[in-house]
Amino acid sequence: METTLRAADDADRCRGATSGLGISGRTRLFAVLGAPVAQVMAPAMMNRLFAEHGVDAVLVPVEVSPGDLDAAVDGMKRIGNLDGFLVTVPHKLALCRHADHLGDAARLIGSVNAMRREADGSWSGDNFDGEGFVRGLLGADRPVAGKRFSLIGAGGAGVSIAAAVLQAGAAGLAIVDIDPSRAEALAARLDTRWPGLARAAAGPDPASDMVVNATPLGLRDGDPLPFALDGLRPGATIADIIMKPAETRLLREAAARGFGTHPGLPMLSEQIPLYREFFRIP
Amino acid sequence: METTLRAADDADRCRGATSGLGISGRTRLFAVLGAPVAQVMAPAMMNRLFAEHGVDAVLVPVEVSPGDLDAAVDGMKRIGNLDGFLVTVPHKLALCRHADHLGDAARLIGSVNAMRREADGSWSGDNFDGEGFVRGLLGADRPVAGKRFSLIGAGGAGVSIAAAVLQAGAAGLAIVDIDPSRAEALAARLDTRWPGLARAAAGPDPASDMVVNATPLGLRDGDPLPFALDGLRPGATIADIIMKPAETRLLREAAARGFGTHPGLPMLSEQIPLYREFFRIP
Repeated sequence: METTLRAADDADRCRGATSGLGISGRTRLFAVLGAPVAQVMAPAMMNRLFAEHGVDAVLVPVEVSPGDLDAAVDGMKRIGNLDGFLVTVPHKLALCRHADHLGDAARLIGSVNAMRREADGSWSGDNFDGEGFVRGLLGADRPVAGKRFSLIGAGGAGVSIAAAVLQAGAAGLAIVDIDPSRAEALAARLDTRWPGLARAAAGPDPASDMVVNATPLGLRDGDPLPFALDGLRPGATIADIIMKPAETRLLREAAARGFGTHPGLPMLSEQIPLYREFFRIP
Repeated sequence: METTLRAADDADRCRGATSGLGISGRTRLFAVLGAPVAQVMAPAMMNRLFAEHGVDAVLVPVEVSPGDLDAAVDGMKRIGNLDGFLVTVPHKLALCRHADHLGDAARLIGSVNAMRREADGSWSGDNFDGEGFVRGLLGADRPVAGKRFSLIGAGGAGVSIAAAVLQAGAAGLAIVDIDPSRAEALAARLDTRWPGLARAAAGPDPASDMVVNATPLGLRDGDPLPFALDGLRPGATIADIIMKPAETRLLREAAARGFGTHPGLPMLSEQIPLYREFFRIP
């Protein structure tokens, strides 16, 4: 049995050397779904969380194009040791139809960024982007209550941010999308819960205290700015939800012109405790 | 931008601390498919290989029941950053139909234990169990050429071992399976390449130099022995391909009765360089 024992020792050393990320046959799986995925920060953050709490689980990036999403998710749900998904651009709206139960925020806005398998095999989805975004603002001493917002991009993350800033007491919200009907639909849905505060608009409200980029523009080198900075009032803050690059062209140009800036990473880092609760990580 | 920079530093520290297993959005994926998967040793071995060669990739265990296999594999093939599969019990035969091209061994025996995505998007499968098993024997100074073998279990790994021991010059092979027609079908297939050497049998040949357990019996506590040790000739060697537990009840009882024993792990560890070549790991 000498060969066996020697090889087992090697395997143990390998596990030890990877401090908590020693993947074995008993490791539970989580996936972050997106296209592209090269920019996602969730693996580093969630795998550190697992390691810190002694949880034998790993989050891996999973790149799936929109046309393959339904078959890929249907297939991955059949993986017995897969316990949950995080969801990023462009799949947050489409993933809704794969959840059997939706949390409050997800139901209102029709977008999920997290799904977990329940004990009975069904799947629950919710969206923590908005709450993470608001927590990130408050943590940076940027109040939300009583402030006027403009939101650029009514996609999967934008809809969640829209609901969360209104929930946190924003005084008004102008919603801009390249597809005006999408901005109008979101404003109408928000109006059912927070009457008179949200409206669709062709561009950022010049009176905004904060203008938020929730489009993917800025993920790639050479992307155009998601909106023009001209005409915004001095003292306004420009927020971006893009995490990589950490300083987008939008934030760089905003800072150069004297606007306040707020980067993308806090929206994710503030969600980590929310994910921990949602995924029931002890 | 202070928040961003601080969080990025944390992420870098986390990556550093996991010595090669720091999973990011750019990490490539490999999966080992099985049911159960708790016992698989491939993640520790392959992830060490990736780390040693500076390859940003990770192998994770994927548990899929036979009824879910086709949909799960169809779905997982749509994951853009998934480059390959390893395959373990009970999926080695069924996975064949998901390969567009089969290597020599896989085509003869109708079983794959590894699949890779080609540049054109097609999938190639091959089976290295048999070659790994034979290399393991030779590495333990147990010759194969001229020896008489009995193989218990003509499933996904067994068929590969059968072909490999004949290829390496075995003098005869008795094939035993709980389903006699499966043993007969394998003997007939082997006969086309190595005439007159393989035959189906009801139990191990008492004249065997080596009797190999290639059934899953022994994976679980309380499993019965895969075959009776009574009547085997003194000096015979009993081999098991089960890796966990390292010492199965079969090997323990064989050793107690004075037979030579050969454990399961070398079959896998000897395949690591073969996987490296197959998956084109630089």
